[in-house]
Formats: sequence, C-alpha cells, structure tokens
Amino acid sequence: MEKVVLAFSGGLDTTVCVKLLEEKYNYEVVTACVDVGQPREELEKSQNSADKINTGKHYIIDAKDEFANEYIARGIKANAEYEGYPLSTALARPLIAMKIIEIAEKEGATAIAHGCTGKGNDQFRFEAIIRSMSDFKIIAPIREMNLTRTEEQAYAKEHGLNLSYDKIYSIDENLWGRAIEGDVLEDPANEPPEEIYEWTKSAEDAKDTPTKVSIEFEEGVPVAINGEIMGLVDLINKANEIAGENGVGRVDIIENRMIGLKSRETYEVPGAKLLIAAHKALEQLVLTVDELRFAEYMSTLYADLVYEALWQEPLREDIDQAIDHMQRRVSGEVVMKLFKGSIQPLSRKSPFSLHSIEQITFEDKETDQNEIEGMIKYHGLQAANYQKLNR
Amino acid sequence: MEKVVLAFSGGLDTTVCVKLLEEKYNYEVVTACVDVGQPREELEKSQNSADKINTGKHYIIDAKDEFANEYIARGIKANAEYEGYPLSTALARPLIAMKIIEIAEKEGATAIAHGCTGKGNDQFRFEAIIRSMSDFKIIAPIREMNLTRTEEQAYAKEHGLNLSYDKIYSIDENLWGRAIEGDVLEDPANEPPEEIYEWTKSAEDAKDTPTKVSIEFEEGVPVAINGEIMGLVDLINKANEIAGENGVGRVDIIENRMIGLKSRETYEVPGAKLLIAAHKALEQLVLTVDELRFAEYMSTLYADLVYEALWQEPLREDIDQAIDHMQRRVSGEVVMKLFKGSIQPLSRKSPFSLHSIEQITFEDKETDQNEIEGMIKYHGLQAANYQKLNR
Amino acid sequence: MEKVVLAFSGGLDTTVCVKLLEEKYNYEVVTACVDVGQPREELEKSQNSADKINTGKHYIIDAKDEFANEYIARGIKANAEYEGYPLSTALARPLIAMKIIEIAEKEGATAIAHGCTGKGNDQFRFEAIIRSMSDFKIIAPIREMNLTRTEEQAYAKEHGLNLSYDKIYSIDENLWGRAIEGDVLEDPANEPPEEIYEWTKSAEDAKDTPTKVSIEFEEGVPVAINGEIMGLVDLINKANEIAGENGVGRVDIIENRMIGLKSRETYEVPGAKLLIAAHKALEQLVLTVDELRFAEYMSTLYADLVYEALWQEPLREDIDQAIDHMQRRVSGEVVMKLFKGSIQPLSRKSPFSLHSIEQITFEDKETDQNEIEGMIKYHGLQAANYQKLNR
Amino acid sequence: MEKVVLAFSGGLDTTVCVKLLEEKYNYEVVTACVDVGQPREELEKSQNSADKINTGKHYIIDAKDEFANEYIARGIKANAEYEGYPLSTALARPLIAMKIIEIAEKEGATAIAHGCTGKGNDQFRFEAIIRSMSDFKIIAPIREMNLTRTEEQAYAKEHGLNLSYDKIYSIDENLWGRAIEGDVLEDPANEPPEEIYEWTKSAEDAKDTPTKVSIEFEEGVPVAINGEIMGLVDLINKANEIAGENGVGRVDIIENRMIGLKSRETYEVPGAKLLIAAHKALEQLVLTVDELRFAEYMSTLYADLVYEALWQEPLREDIDQAIDHMQRRVSGEVVMKLFKGSIQPLSRKSPFSLHSIEQITFEDKETDQNEIEGMIKYHGLQAANYQKLNR
Repeated sequence: MEKVVLAFSGGLDTTVCVKLLEEKYNYEVVTACVDVGQPREELEKSQNSADKINTGKHYIIDAKDEFANEYIARGIKANAEYEGYPLSTALARPLIAMKIIEIAEKEGATAIAHGCTGKGNDQFRFEAIIRSMSDFKIIAPIREMNLTRTEEQAYAKEHGLNLSYDKIYSIDENLWGRAIEGDVLEDPANEPPEEIYEWTKSAEDAKDTPTKVSIEFEEGVPVAINGEIMGLVDLINKANEIAGENGVGRVDIIENRMIGLKSRETYEVPGAKLLIAAHKALEQLVLTVDELRFAEYMSTLYADLVYEALWQEPLREDIDQAIDHMQRRVSGEVVMKLFKGSIQPLSRKSPFSLHSIEQITFEDKETDQNEIEGMIKYHGLQAANYQKLNR
Repeated sequence: MEKVVLAFSGGLDTTVCVKLLEEKYNYEVVTACVDVGQPREELEKSQNSADKINTGKHYIIDAKDEFANEYIARGIKANAEYEGYPLSTALARPLIAMKIIEIAEKEGATAIAHGCTGKGNDQFRFEAIIRSMSDFKIIAPIREMNLTRTEEQAYAKEHGLNLSYDKIYSIDENLWGRAIEGDVLEDPANEPPEEIYEWTKSAEDAKDTPTKVSIEFEEGVPVAINGEIMGLVDLINKANEIAGENGVGRVDIIENRMIGLKSRETYEVPGAKLLIAAHKALEQLVLTVDELRFAEYMSTLYADLVYEALWQEPLREDIDQAIDHMQRRVSGEVVMKLFKGSIQPLSRKSPFSLHSIEQITFEDKETDQNEIEGMIKYHGLQAANYQKLNR
Repeated sequence: MEKVVLAFSGGLDTTVCVKLLEEKYNYEVVTACVDVGQPREELEKSQNSADKINTGKHYIIDAKDEFANEYIARGIKANAEYEGYPLSTALARPLIAMKIIEIAEKEGATAIAHGCTGKGNDQFRFEAIIRSMSDFKIIAPIREMNLTRTEEQAYAKEHGLNLSYDKIYSIDENLWGRAIEGDVLEDPANEPPEEIYEWTKSAEDAKDTPTKVSIEFEEGVPVAINGEIMGLVDLINKANEIAGENGVGRVDIIENRMIGLKSRETYEVPGAKLLIAAHKALEQLVLTVDELRFAEYMSTLYADLVYEALWQEPLREDIDQAIDHMQRRVSGEVVMKLFKGSIQPLSRKSPFSLHSIEQITFEDKETDQNEIEGMIKYHGLQAANYQKLNR
Repeated sequence: MEKVVLAFSGGLDTTVCVKLLEEKYNYEVVTACVDVGQPREELEKSQNSADKINTGKHYIIDAKDEFANEYIARGIKANAEYEGYPLSTALARPLIAMKIIEIAEKEGATAIAHGCTGKGNDQFRFEAIIRSMSDFKIIAPIREMNLTRTEEQAYAKEHGLNLSYDKIYSIDENLWGRAIEGDVLEDPANEPPEEIYEWTKSAEDAKDTPTKVSIEFEEGVPVAINGEIMGLVDLINKANEIAGENGVGRVDIIENRMIGLKSRETYEVPGAKLLIAAHKALEQLVLTVDELRFAEYMSTLYADLVYEALWQEPLREDIDQAIDHMQRRVSGEVVMKLFKGSIQPLSRKSPFSLHSIEQITFEDKETDQNEIEGMIKYHGLQAANYQKLNR
C-alpha cells in the first residue's frame, strides 16, 4: 500500500481526511503537524486526534525558530501586509509545506494530502510549494469529493470520529497571528462579537495606564525589547503580550481572496502590528525618500507574493536582495507608546539617521535663503506652461 | 507707488514683511487673510495686527466652503496623505494663492508678496500657483533679505512692532488640521510634549467610554454623521470634535521636505484621520481589487502633487477624472469605533457592495469545489519551472 | 429543442463544434460571424462552411466601425501593447462576445458556444464578457470533450465535413493585426519563416525609397494621413498598407499567456505600430513629464486588462476617464519616416506643445544662470548625507 | 595660490574657464580629461588646447574599462533608457567626477571646477557626485558669471584663445553614444539634417544586405559577438560598428530635462540599441512574468536615477542587488537581424529558459483541458459582480 503524508491539525477537515485517504484512496496515512507557534493545546489536539483515530504515525515538527528567522523576519523587513493583514497564516504555509515534503521523502511516501476546501487560499499555498519543490502527487480529499461542512460532520459521526466539532468560527493560529472567520463575521454589516478575540483585550478592558516600549532593531530585524536582547521567537511572544494587553492588534477587513471573492476577515496580530509600526518609524529616519517610495512599492508586491503563496517565485528572492541591502542601515531604537488600542511612535534614534538638526534649524546663517529662488522658479515649470496655454 | 498684496497672518514673519515692503521695496501694501477655517483668534490677530501697523487696507476672505468642497473633498476621495500627513496646510495653499491673485487683480496691484523663509515648502506652494495662474511679480522679503528669526525679532522691535512674538512653536491651523513644529520637536529623539496639542486629548485624558460614530458617504464624500446630514464644513468640524475628544488624530513623522531635508513634524488631524479611515473601509467593500490597487497608486501620486503644490498640474486633473468615476460607487454607511486614541471599523454597508454572502458561504453546494483544481495547478507555473531548473 | 448561438469562423474548431452541439449537446445551432475587419475570404469561408454543413441560420455582423471607434481608438489613446503586441485579437474579443449576446437575445437562445481549446487566452476573453454581461449558459465543446487537433480532424472526417483543414499555422486576423502561431514557430530558437507573413514585406523586399508619412491626431485619435481626412477604419487600412509595404510591423515575442505558459508569438501589426509610434511622439510634445510617467503606468495596466479580457472591469472605465482627459491636448501633426522595416519620427507640431524655444535657447539673457545654484546644491541632499555617513 | 582641478575638454566652455579661474578666481589650474571612449581627436584636442593655453598640468585618464564594466554593464542589465535615450553622457558623468576627485586629492587642490552652463543636466551630475563624495569647493565659472555663448566667444577672442569655435552643434561623445544638440535641432518641427550623424548610416545609405548578428550574454552582460569572446570595450565598439553601418541607433526625442524644460534631443547610440534589444529578447525567455514587470519598473527608476546623477543614491545600490540576482539567469544567445535601420530578434536560446515546448504544444493529451474551467469561471469575478449590479 502506498503512503501519503497528511498535513494534520486534528480538526474536522483533516480528521475526516484520514479516513477518506484510507477508505476511498487506499493509502497508508502518515500525519504531521508542524509547530509554527500555535498554542500548546492545538499541538496536543493534533496528537490526541492522531492517537484516537490511530493513524500509523504522527509527526510533530518544531519549526518555530525557522518560521521566525526565515519567514517572519522577512515579513518585518518588507513591512509585508496584505490589505492590512500581516500574513500570519500565509507566511507559515510555505514552511509547513516544505516540512511535509521532508517527511514524505523520509517516509518514502508517494503522495501528500491536505484538508483544504475549494474556496480558500490555503489550497493554492500548499500546492504551489509542493508542485514547485517536489514531484509528489497531491491529494485534496475534501475538495475532490466536494464535501460541505455538514457532510463532513455526518461522515465523521458515521465513522465514529467522536470529536466535538462544534466550533462556531474557523480559526488559524501561529506565532505571527490569529485568524478568525465564519458565522456572523461573514456579513460585513455585523460588528465582530467580543468573544472572537483571545490574544487582545478590548480597548475598554485594556490596561489603564499607557505602556512605553522600546524596540531595538539590527539590520531591519527586532533584537531587543526594553533593552532585553532575545531571540526572535521570544521577542515576538513578548510583543504579542505587550500589545495584546494594551488592546492593540485587531484587524477587521474586507479581504480580496485569490479567486476574487471579497471576504470579511478578522485577525489578532498584536505583535505584528507593534513591530511593523516600530520598523516603519525607524525606516523614516534612515532611508532616503527615494528608498522609502521603492520600499513601499516592494512591500505591496511582496505581500501579494506571500499571500498568493509564491514564496518560491524568483521575484521573491530578487526583492529580498534589494530589501536586505536597504535594511543594513535599519538599525537603532524606537520608543512606542501603547494605550487602549492606540499605538504611537514617541522617539527614534539611529547611527544611520539621515536627519540633520544642523540642516533643519531655522537660525542657520551659513546658507543663503536666496539660493533656493531658482529652484522655486523652475518648480512646476511644465504645469505653468500648460496653464499659460489655458489662459 | 505700486501696490503689492501680501498674504498676511499677523504673525512675526508677515508683520515684518509689511514694513520691509514699505521701506525697502517701496510698495503700498494691501494685506489679506484668507479664512480656511483657522481659529477665530487667528483671524482677529490678523485684523488687529493690520490695524496696529496701519496697513492701507486689510481683507479677510471667507473661503471655508470652497476649501471644504473643492479641496478637502478631493483629498478625502483620494485618501491623500503624504507620509501619514493628510496635507492640511498643503491643500489650503493653492486656494489661498488663488484668492490673493483675485485681490491683486481687483486692487490693480503689480506684485504679490509672502512671508515664507527659504527652507520650507510653503514658498514653493505659493509661488508655483501664482506663477502658473498669473503674471504678478512675486516678492519674498524674508527670504530675499535672508533674515533669521532673531533678526526678524530685532527688526520688529526696532520698528516699534510691539507684538508679543514669544511663541515657542511654529503653528499652522485650518479646517483640515493643525501643524506644530520647532523647538524640542526638531530632534526626533525627543518625545513631543503634551502642551503642543490643542485639538486632541491625550489617550489618557480622552473620554472613558468608547464612541461609535456612523458616517455616511455619497460618491466618496461624507454627507452625514450619526444620521445627521450636514454641509462639509460643519461635518469636518464635528469629526474633529468627536475624534479629538477620543484622542484620535495625532501624527508624528519624519517628513521628507521638498528640498530633501528630513524634518520631524507633528500634526493634529482628528477629523481627517476619522474620515479617511471610514472612507477606506467603505472602498474595500465596493471597489474591485484592481481598482483598490490603482486607487492606492493614485493616492500616493496625488499626495505628492498636493504636497509639492502642483495643484495646477494637468496630471492632477487627469487623476481626478479617474477618481471621480471610481467614487461614484463609494456611497454607503460605515460605523467606526473610537476610544482613547484607537480607531476601528465596526460595520459597513453599501448598495454597491461587491461582497456576496452567497458566494462566500461554506455550505454552498451549487459550485463544485473540484472545478478550482486547474487554477491551482497552473498557479505559480513559471515559479515551478524555475524551481525545477534549480533542482 | 433549445437554441445555442455559436461564434463561428468556419475553421476546423468551430465546424466540429456545430456537429458536437447538435449531436452531443442536442441544441439547435445558430452560427454567427462578427466582421471586425478580417479578410473577405474569411467571411466567405464562414458563409460557405455554414452553407455546407447546413446550420439553421448564419449571421454575419459588420462591426468594423464600432471596433475601430470604440475599441482600437481606446487602444491608441492608451498606447496599449502587451509585451510588444498591440492586442489586435484581444481588443476584438469583447466586441465579438457582445454581438453574440445580442444575437442570442434576439434568437431567444439559452446558451452561447465557442470553439476555444483549453490552453489559450480566448476562452477567458469570451467567457468573462458573456458571464458579466448576460446569464446565458456557456458551452465550450472542444474543451469540455478534451479534443486534440488530431481528434478533431478525425471527427470531421467521420462526419463528412469535407473541408481542407491542412493549415500549418493557427491564424487570427482583424483590422488591427494578424496573429500567426504554431508549427516551427513554437520553438523560440527557430527563425520565423518568411512564408508566415502576408501583411508586411520583408525589409529586403520592401520599397527601395523611404516613405514620409504625416499623421494628424485629434484628441489622441488619428484623423488624417498625409492631409487626407478619413474615418478610422479607412485610416487604419491605409496605415497597414503604408507601413506593411515598408516592412514595418513584424513582432516576434515570447509572450506570457494568461495561464502562465510562455509562448512564442508572431504578429503582423503594421498600422498599429505606425499609429502608436506617431501617437507617442506627439505625446512627448504636449504632455507634462508627470503625465507621461502616469500614462506609461496606465498603458501597462490597460494592456493587461485588455489582454486578460477585463474590458468590463470598472477599472478599465476609470482609466479611460483619466486617459480621455489627458488626450484632449494630444492634437497635432507628426511626420514619420518609414524605410525597410525602420520607423522614425521626423517632426512634430501641436497647438498644445509644452516645448518652448524661448525657454530652451542658449542665448537667453533674461534668466540669471546663477539662480539655479541652490537647486543644484540641494539635489541629492539625502544621498550626500548617506555618503557622508559612509565616508 | 590654491589649486583647482578643472574637468577639461578643450572646447570653448572649458578653455574660457581656465582663463577665468586664473584671472577672476585666482587659482592655479590643473586640467584633466577623462577618457571614456570619446574619439581620439577629442583627447588630442584637449591635450593641444591644454598645451596652447599653457595650463600648469594636464591629465588624461584612461577610464574606458571602468566605464564599460562598472557603468555601462549596469545600464545594460537594467535596460536603462530615459525616454528612449540610453544615457550615454549621464552614465559617464559620475565616473568622470570620481576621477577628477582623485586627481584633486592627489594634487592637493582645494576646489574642483566645471564648465557647465545653467540650463543643462550636467551641472547637476557633476556637483551631486562631488558634493557627496568629497568636501571640495565647487566652481562653475560660466554659470557663476552668467555668460552666454556669444560672450564666451568674445572673451576667448579678447584673451587670444585663437581656437576655432565655429561648431554649429553641441556634441558629447563616449563609448556608449553620441549626443547632438543645438541650432536647427532645437525646434521639434524641423527634421534633423543628415550632417549631424557620424556613427550611423542613414537607412538609405546603409548596407544593402541584412546582417545577422549573434550576441552571447553571461549573467546579463554581453560577452561575445558572432561567437568571438571579447572584453566589453571592444564588444561595444564592435556593436557600434555593426549597428551603425546598418543604420540602427538614431534617437530623436522631446526630452524632459531635470529643471523641467522640454528639449529636442538627438542621439546616435547604435551599439546601445543593439545590445539592449538583444538583452530584452533574452530576458523574455528566462525571467518570469512577475520578474519582467518588476524589471520594467526598476528600469524606469534606474534610468531616472542615472539621468538625475543620483549614482551615489543608496537606492541605486539597492536596485542593483535585485537586478544582479535576477540577471544570474540572463545567460544565453540571441540572434538579431539588422537591416536599413530596422532591428529584429530572430532566435533565442538559454539554459535557463522557462519556455517549455511540451507545455505549449496542442497535441498534449496528458492534461485535461476541462480542468481550466474553474479558473475561467472565477476570472473577472468582481468585474462580473459589478456588471450585475449595473444591469
């Protein structure tokens, strides 16, 4: 019997997949859960589910450091946000897919399976990577059998998969953020109920005193919070905690999905919002205006590539070269103020600052103000010629 | 004696200019102050100063409605922000210049004067418009005589201009926002002192209960707040008040000035931040993803044009055509939540919504999930070819 | 029996479709051929084929003027080229689809069919329009039955469709250009054989004396050639003739198809190349540099939209507004020189010219060269600050 | 007496400068001419002039290899053209300025001088580099004394500078191209007279048989012509010769100068046009469509930076990183056909080709055409939703 490796969370979709792969596709199923910082209970749930349904073998792979250093760090350097969403799930997918490929190779499997349905983005993300980086056959049982959630639940019951799948919302969590969708959220006219949030306090319930937090960057990557140097996984956890308790990091957008659907999406990304805001504040100080505009252009492009799962696009690597070169000077310290959902830069310092107090000061007598006159005269010359023709 | 019309605020720069224009340039001076929503005291100060120094004639022109409907409305439709700054001063300059030209024509003047110094943006803004839209000679006494602030103060004293010019900060205010610069603010490492703010409460002192505010748009322009239809001037004043008391609307950036200097700038723009956030939230619902990307591109370009005082560029008009066409569908209602400096969309509705609950819902059985398979297979085809060459 | 309207050329694909629609899909078939300037023989072929296989009803719709004035004119104003290809086929598809919809409505049909296969762009083009602008069922027999060309030929033979389908190349022709693909052309390492060209002489065989041609534009659209005012259909035919006999207008590119395949494509587009080159030459004279850059950006976007059959995207209309406003000044005369494949502007004139000989001339003593000094000093200020940190 | 190093061509402007620097500025003048591939007579003229007017010291610095390998090679990799002009003069200016700085350091000079007037681009180019890369005082005698050409001629005569300065046109030549401006060329309505061209035959007088030329690239840089490997200086000379004798490489544009003036400019750039066309043809084969679009964006930006003399901008270096990474795969061979002014790619080959004949061929039975159906259905989904609202 041929082997398939299934990306397995222990939720409804992937649990049903195990049975389908065994019964309908005739595979021996190896399950794997890649730890990219989801909560411990998630990992335990995947282990418990695997035990219960007695899959042949269940892997749990710790990829947190790799996720932080190779993926999130790139996201921060690029200020990568898709329509306001810092790409938490999207950034993790290529890494998860790569890890699954590794297991499939190790296990001598012939296929890789995932539990994605046919309307979302994740199917694209998984398959684009697997198809680029390997020759494994890809199986998507839920989509291929065109199952609805109700049908899946019936199938699960029927097969004695006695798990409680009564979740109202569809949730995806990792180190970089938490995505919540489904139910009342689907209608953009509905206000998101408070119950959907776990990482962030509401502004009302947030700490009653403002928090000032200092973040140090080296070459575009945060390396210390409040003076304490730490690894990126710890630093992001810390940032999630600080921003979350101050009510910072809720995102509520009408997102344009890959297949063109507009979808109301809510996210909790407290650390991401804090770190990207601080990173941008520092960039304003050290990058030239031409670099800032180019960085903004690349940022949008980068976010699109990540959102569309084109991590393996050579363009992604090309852009990384430009970003890395630019980020060599994005070192320094930013102090941010967080309070009841608001976030503000307070001060910024860098050895690479292009700001010059001497150049800016009013009292400077060295340069003759008159010398600017010609520049002013020529400014808008073509517009003036146009208006003169008009008059 | 030839006449000159001087854009006159009654502050140090322009008061000194009156004397300089009379004594050094030998002009009869007509002063003019254009009301674009600055506080009443500012207008009074200009009148009082004009009286004191006995200028021949002093105009106060009410241009508030024109400013709101012809300039700010365009700024909202374009989401125009330059590096985070909603362009309050920049949007007013062309209008002020146009009004000064009108007065100069009416008065039979031969020249127009302004009090700008040689490092800022406003000299470009005034002169680009005047040079495009008229043939008046332009005089910039402070810049042409290369005076520092200290020298101006000495000159004022010497000429018995007994006004108290002990302001610490340089401030510019109008309906769309308040700009504060100078002194300790010049160093980006310094936190802005609380005293600089007048329109916005600090997050700490802001209202202790959240405010939900509904904003209705018609063709991209806000027309009602909390169901109350009002003219744009009143609506913006209301928005300034609501957002300000919730601590929303403080901006602290390292701005790239026209001549290339990096300058730390602080602004209070509560209404602008509220209205632009609501406008963007509505656009997400009604514009296609291709339109949203193009709108973002135009927004940056538009902000640059306004910042650089190129209101009379034909490109500005070209872009307005595209924006106006796009904004025909930006009608509907957005509910925003404001609290202690934070601002969040809660719900959005529009008759032109491209969001479809039917298309998004999971239970939909009409469309076969399988049909997406080909799209997934082809997604990232070139990237896959590239990776295959690599492997 | 329900009726289907089939877009019908009389070639192998669509002839096979007639039979398939009758036999496999059980429809009464109405065929329609939209005249967008393809050669008379093509129209006759469609009529003859329709007669031979005895379709119930065959329409030939003359849409040449509409094609020229509503589609090609927009292409010229936008300088729309996709990777060097002026979009001849792509621009015609939406119009053809619209005409087919009209016939289907008139005939009371329930479905629309086309003969496209599953790898090309035209299936997207047809269906995107039909799906947006109507609710007709869409049938694509060749693709749905997954037929190869060999299988189609076998089916044709089997059904006594005694037509000679021995064409080596796949060709599509209309007023705006001629596309040739297939056979030896598929390999980019092969030189295109001379035999594929019909509209253009080879440079070697082209006229032995240069041709100077004057083209007059009004609001971005060509209205006269060599002083002779004519309608756009006639003008394009004339331009095709003049450029073709001078060997101008051959395009040989590696094109990126919609599904991501790279495909070697060859085109003959003599008139398009001549008119777009002249149009661009005139734009350089009358548009500001800011407008030229924005026009270039819109041009790429517009070409992508047309190539991808998104004529009905609201963004296309938005862009048209900006372009139309800009083109109001693109009036004037350009003289081009054509010779043995080369094309050069010789002279350009316009009442809206922003070029000023007075401003440019060296001998001008009015303006003091010194006044430029400040501008030069500030030019590259941030780059200089960066380099000083480096040193 | 302090020393100044003057960038010296031996033409009118710089010869007058020598005298002015001695007499009006009281400097000891060292002259320097940087060889960036201008014709031998130019170098000799600079030597002869230097001898005649007896400058203290005259340097001739051979920088041809550096120009080709460090500057032109970057221009080719970026396809850098400003409004159709391959930036021959602009690319050389930073290098010339750097060499002058080196001499000034070696000579212990305190200032650097140039002969630029106040309307052109070259003053910006020289000074931006010198100001960024050194602290030398900069002197621009012609501009500072506001001399017209007529005044310069008078001054030259007066000082016994008996050189024949009866040139009609202002010409700048180097390895990468030849720029001609002035006189009748200033009016865009005038056709350029044949006499201005030296490097290129007119199409009429060009070779009577077509030339096929093969160009090999390695990592984006041409390394061989017709199979003969050669250094870049020789290769560009060869390319200039081949393209020039076939009438390829004449450019006639309305250029937007840095200060906003529109200026009619004519160039001869045969080698540049040939090599860039071949380079682009190869890129179409090996870069993904996403990379091609990004490359095009960077190309425009790069050309602007070079045109505006911002070689020392960190953005230029950032972009170079992305380009260099992308160009690693731009290796292969392109065959171009040149004939009487026309230029066409004939064939292209690369080990990094992303073109796949297997993927493109019609007869492929492996993939089911049906699988594309879903993609087609979703294509233009938002546009369809928009149109449905409209209907």
